[in-house]
Amino acid sequence: MMPDLQPGQKLARGVARHLRAHGFVSVEEFVPARGLRVDVMGLGPRGELWVVECKSNRVDFTSDSKWQGYLDWCDRYFWAVDTDFPSELLPETTGLIVADAYDAEIIRMAPEDRVAPARRKALIQKFAVHAARRLHDLRDPRV
Amino acid sequence: MMPDLQPGQKLARGVARHLRAHGFVSVEEFVPARGLRVDVMGLGPRGELWVVECKSNRVDFTSDSKWQGYLDWCDRYFWAVDTDFPSELLPETTGLIVADAYDAEIIRMAPEDRVAPARRKALIQKFAVHAARRLHDLRDPRV
Repeated sequence: MMPDLQPGQKLARGVARHLRAHGFVSVEEFVPARGLRVDVMGLGPRGELWVVECKSNRVDFTSDSKWQGYLDWCDRYFWAVDTDFPSELLPETTGLIVADAYDAEIIRMAPEDRVAPARRKALIQKFAVHAARRLHDLRDPRV
Repeated sequence: MMPDLQPGQKLARGVARHLRAHGFVSVEEFVPARGLRVDVMGLGPRGELWVVECKSNRVDFTSDSKWQGYLDWCDRYFWAVDTDFPSELLPETTGLIVADAYDAEIIRMAPEDRVAPARRKALIQKFAVHAARRLHDLRDPRV
């Protein structure tokens, strides 16, 4: 059964499935720092941090003035779009994932720009807290 | 609504609620290292790692030959038991939590024996993976 998801959330679901096939886990709507909220934060087996922003249409992308602020909070930055999206709009210096609600595919690997060790440590702890809190909310809704 | 939980899982649920009130998040059935599985692993705001083993009766405790192996994987080690448990059986060098399915209370704070930084880093990353994977399984059961 398909839950009632927004277009961007459908892309995020497909992205999360695909990341898992790469050995990554991920969370949605992760806040790396105050005022920032990324659609998908992936965590790889060696502590790699990938941000994936999901754009369901052109305006969704052109109206986004924040994305460059996310670059400092990940090792690789990707866009996830559907097959109809005019992907030539997207900067070639970022990664490209084509997704739907069921799966995704990395079309262009993002260049790597590794975050510093202290920031990585803090982000992974924040990721752990985010995931555990959401999990607890789902398992024990009376919390 | 109370899901159909085993006695130990009920204690774990109360423990998780109480830890949250202390600013901790937690996961259940966490595997810190091959062959070990702890009932509750709590993660504190400054990266503190607390293990809580839940014992629903005397035999559950006396038949446990593994618990000392958990001491190396946390900063503080606790037992969680219900009010009927003969708590004098439990070593005084460990922490004591009295719990039920709804809440818990720390009766005796466990002594602190901090894990080394490299191990803490690895454990927090493992905690993040565990929590995110369980969360993903619940949110998208078709994964």
